[in-house]
Amino acid sequence: MYAEIISVGTELLLGHTINSDAAYVARELSALGINLLYSCTVGDNPERLEAALQTALDRSDIVITTGGLGPTGDDLTKETIAKTAGKKLVLHQESLDRIVEYFKGRVMGESQKKQAMLPEGCTVFPNGCGTAPGCGFQTANGKTMIMLPGPPSELIPMLKNYAVPFLAKESGAVIVSRIVRVFGLGEGYVAEQITDLTEGTNPTAATYAKDGEMFVRVTARAKDEAAASALCEPVVDELQRRLGDFIYGIDVESLEELVVKELTRRGLHLACAESCTGGLLASRITDIPGSSAAFQMGAVTYANEIKTLLLDVPEETLRQYGAVSEQTARAMAEGIVRKSGSELGIGITGIAGPGGGTPEKPVGLVYLALCDGKQTWVRKMPGNNAKKGRRYLRWLAASNALDMVRRYLFDLGGLEEAAYTAKNI
Amino acid sequence: MYAEIISVGTELLLGHTINSDAAYVARELSALGINLLYSCTVGDNPERLEAALQTALDRSDIVITTGGLGPTGDDLTKETIAKTAGKKLVLHQESLDRIVEYFKGRVMGESQKKQAMLPEGCTVFPNGCGTAPGCGFQTANGKTMIMLPGPPSELIPMLKNYAVPFLAKESGAVIVSRIVRVFGLGEGYVAEQITDLTEGTNPTAATYAKDGEMFVRVTARAKDEAAASALCEPVVDELQRRLGDFIYGIDVESLEELVVKELTRRGLHLACAESCTGGLLASRITDIPGSSAAFQMGAVTYANEIKTLLLDVPEETLRQYGAVSEQTARAMAEGIVRKSGSELGIGITGIAGPGGGTPEKPVGLVYLALCDGKQTWVRKMPGNNAKKGRRYLRWLAASNALDMVRRYLFDLGGLEEAAYTAKNI
Repeated sequence: MYAEIISVGTELLLGHTINSDAAYVARELSALGINLLYSCTVGDNPERLEAALQTALDRSDIVITTGGLGPTGDDLTKETIAKTAGKKLVLHQESLDRIVEYFKGRVMGESQKKQAMLPEGCTVFPNGCGTAPGCGFQTANGKTMIMLPGPPSELIPMLKNYAVPFLAKESGAVIVSRIVRVFGLGEGYVAEQITDLTEGTNPTAATYAKDGEMFVRVTARAKDEAAASALCEPVVDELQRRLGDFIYGIDVESLEELVVKELTRRGLHLACAESCTGGLLASRITDIPGSSAAFQMGAVTYANEIKTLLLDVPEETLRQYGAVSEQTARAMAEGIVRKSGSELGIGITGIAGPGGGTPEKPVGLVYLALCDGKQTWVRKMPGNNAKKGRRYLRWLAASNALDMVRRYLFDLGGLEEAAYTAKNI
Repeated sequence: MYAEIISVGTELLLGHTINSDAAYVARELSALGINLLYSCTVGDNPERLEAALQTALDRSDIVITTGGLGPTGDDLTKETIAKTAGKKLVLHQESLDRIVEYFKGRVMGESQKKQAMLPEGCTVFPNGCGTAPGCGFQTANGKTMIMLPGPPSELIPMLKNYAVPFLAKESGAVIVSRIVRVFGLGEGYVAEQITDLTEGTNPTAATYAKDGEMFVRVTARAKDEAAASALCEPVVDELQRRLGDFIYGIDVESLEELVVKELTRRGLHLACAESCTGGLLASRITDIPGSSAAFQMGAVTYANEIKTLLLDVPEETLRQYGAVSEQTARAMAEGIVRKSGSELGIGITGIAGPGGGTPEKPVGLVYLALCDGKQTWVRKMPGNNAKKGRRYLRWLAASNALDMVRRYLFDLGGLEEAAYTAKNI
């Protein structure tokens, strides 16, 4: 089975948007064992889109388009595909109802309605995060066409929940994927450790890097789910043997999800005092539904006087060691535990840059402290990551804080092991 | 002048790598006034690459390849291009010297040498960050071929320093783009208001939606920058007439950047007390470099007792009106102003979901308060956005808070106008 992706959007050809959709779709195709031979991008131009569609339908079995399903006049993907594939566009009442419901209590433009017009007889992919539904159908000469919306927030869930099952059904196989999430080791390093595992074809194992973490995706194809899961198992076990407690979870979403779940299960509470991360840690924790059971208070103490006012960080400590120091991080963590009455407290202070660095305290230097009311542990992120940028450094600092809580909760040790936290990332 | 990009690399078709190179190249082309009509990706496969090259050379004047210039066996771009364009590969001594120098003191594999083999008579683009040089040349029938390396760290500088100057000689025009950013109106709604403007060809105007905001990009092409800017101006002016103060900035990055800049310029400070946004507002503000000048303190008061402890929200208020109420938001904003000594304070309380909603207080209901020490304004986000999900609701709440600060700072009024804040978003 050969597939081809056609990404539609003038913004892609102007370089205003990086085409991440193609990569998301490509990953799912390779997990399905479908060969992607070409991926191409055309603008919001019906003639060129039609030409690209013709070429794709001639040389591939499956053609997947991303983008161009919106309400505006230059969103022409659906009309052009219908024309090229010789399909009529008909109103899909259920989609129209969804769109009307979506705009309930708000003004809905007439143009929104055209999003409910879909190729006759197609399988509709509902859009849970936006208005434009996607769809899949067979062309007259047995090719498979799939249309997906452009915004990643709409494409990613539709891909997983509707397009992949649609394709799997066509290939008559069931796919099972396991995600093995790793914090503290880089993709390049892990890839070297598991080369033999990544050479398999069923199950496949592939490494990915994202936001200072990496993960391994193990995917197997079989006649039913049980058989596919059984194929994945030995590889997942071997990964656990080789990567040990750098693996923070299998099929979990994120460090914050893992930490919130375990805190909740144990009836523990976490509070955090943030300087350089400026609320990012609290924001990541409270992104998890139900986090209020485990999280009561966060303090963003950007100014020194606020560190003293809110967390009783001694002015003497700030004067003697500076705001970015092990001592200040420690005092912040201990202060937030006292203040919040939570069992666990995090303190984070560092230099996120781009300014504010010195030879002694370079951009990227971050001290993280975890206090459990009896003991306080401090982890140091060396400032050797400056060129990664402010956003990345703040994210990595918050991730390190979550990793310290994880290692504390699961009694893994390594809370203070600074070396590896930046190593290979 | 029509251009086409061919990205070479199996890792792109497996989705292991997101193709950012194509976007970098596309931006430079559009800045040069060169029309990019197609961008396609092929694997490390000589037959398919040759086919793609043939197609590209038939329909475009300029063909730019990225990737496949490395030393390994599957790096076949150069060989394939030379074959397709009927060019001989010859040793470029200067490039070989560079490569040898690059490996000085390290083992240099024989295979590295093949990177110094380049099409006869080409213009060589030295690689300042790696080993593989790029190049540009004219084919027998007057088409322009350009080869660039895949790693962005090598491609980006080579593009700016060598490829763009090489191309500039072949193009007369310059492109200017203006970004008009809008908060409080949806893309569909705006698109209908400006249909006539989006039908132009020079300048063009296109609408985009992102994270609960929308923006209009106005792009013009002319012989020089002044002329291109002059073409954009009337359209930008007309957009301002039609969209008024829903436009929060032109060529600014984000609401938070605008707010931080204006606070800093005026020597004012903002503090925020967050419940449902859980630190997201503070995190977005402190994402802006230099925000410490305008931001001193944030409080994430998730639990009721913390609202009282930290912000002196009267227990009576919480009991009588509930944590999610206009009164509590007001008390939070006033409390954070008192506590932080900042001139401006924000209070946010709401129901981000997915759980916790009731008929009276549905998921998505958020109260936002802004206090300047003398007066307090409250904006209400009605709970009709539940489907958008927790992450989106939190983001939109933080954006509304920033919009209130913007309207306060620029004296625009509408601080409390709840209706439109969710309308059409």
